[in-house]
Amino acid sequence: MYPRSIQNLIESFKTFAGIGEKTAERLAFSVLSMEKEQVKNLSDNLIMAKQNIKRCKKCNNLTENEICDICNDKARKHDTLCVVEEPKTVFSIEKLGTYHGDYHVLNGLIASFNNINPEELRIDTLINRIQNSQYKEVIVAVKQCIEGEITALYIKNILSDMNIKVTRIASGIPMGADIEYIDSITLEKAFDNRTTIS
Amino acid sequence: MYPRSIQNLIESFKTFAGIGEKTAERLAFSVLSMEKEQVKNLSDNLIMAKQNIKRCKKCNNLTENEICDICNDKARKHDTLCVVEEPKTVFSIEKLGTYHGDYHVLNGLIASFNNINPEELRIDTLINRIQNSQYKEVIVAVKQCIEGEITALYIKNILSDMNIKVTRIASGIPMGADIEYIDSITLEKAFDNRTTIS
Repeated sequence: MYPRSIQNLIESFKTFAGIGEKTAERLAFSVLSMEKEQVKNLSDNLIMAKQNIKRCKKCNNLTENEICDICNDKARKHDTLCVVEEPKTVFSIEKLGTYHGDYHVLNGLIASFNNINPEELRIDTLINRIQNSQYKEVIVAVKQCIEGEITALYIKNILSDMNIKVTRIASGIPMGADIEYIDSITLEKAFDNRTTIS
Repeated sequence: MYPRSIQNLIESFKTFAGIGEKTAERLAFSVLSMEKEQVKNLSDNLIMAKQNIKRCKKCNNLTENEICDICNDKARKHDTLCVVEEPKTVFSIEKLGTYHGDYHVLNGLIASFNNINPEELRIDTLINRIQNSQYKEVIVAVKQCIEGEITALYIKNILSDMNIKVTRIASGIPMGADIEYIDSITLEKAFDNRTTIS
């Protein structure tokens, strides 16, 4: 029904995660109302991003170089290692500007029912890094879910004889949320992990 | 903070209408997890769409040719003309499959406070088409808002001495909507335009 070029563009947008028919149509029409130069830029930037971005040889984060800017940053404290599921989380934490340690990107979580075993994740390189460094603490910053729980426990276990503190970011009620709408598991965790008012 | 290629891609996505920082980031990461071939296709389709799509010389709809498929379709009834604000509406109505007449895309609505006067819209070509055709009815299918109202009335007026029926698509309560949440203008219109139960 659409002219072929528009239909092709809509189909391309539909391959994005979480983009359905309606949004793909909206994006395609948005392209048509852009300046030619702007569309050329987007088209080039797509190719460049796919071409240039690779994984950091050290932490497995996204980078344009062999070693990412964070790993290369001499000013950072190399006594703490934050383990995350995917590169996106690195950027979310970096935006806070409060964490200054190293990162390690697993590229997934352990999910035996989906056949994602520890061997498929970057856990071997994690152990390797920890053995060859002076880390005092490993912070596991993964999703609050069964797979996250399993992955955190697995890491805790394999590091148990290494005299290293393994922590997990807190689970609880998000800021501003109404307690009556919070699921029972989160509420239970919030009670269990209650902190002293000082 | 992001590697430059990712940052550039995010900036490109942010130029889309209605795409903010968070969604642009999500789209950029989505690109990184696509196959190289898929990204190449998207990149090409962007350029092709911008290059190939132009306006139909007759109805002003989007097309790859001089005259669009709808205008060229001999099987359609050329006694009804549906006037719409933008090409998107043509495709929305076509999806229904119940309207088989012609279209005319205005490319905007009259909004004197925004300096959009009838001369800026395709109203001259509209009059031209009607004068040279056998249309029995002009259906004004534009947004229910002040600009839509003004545009519909303007079209009604300029066609008043042409012995042609000018109608407007109905305004009222959408299917499934709770009446208590409907704004008062819509509810008033729904009362005014009530239909006989047969």
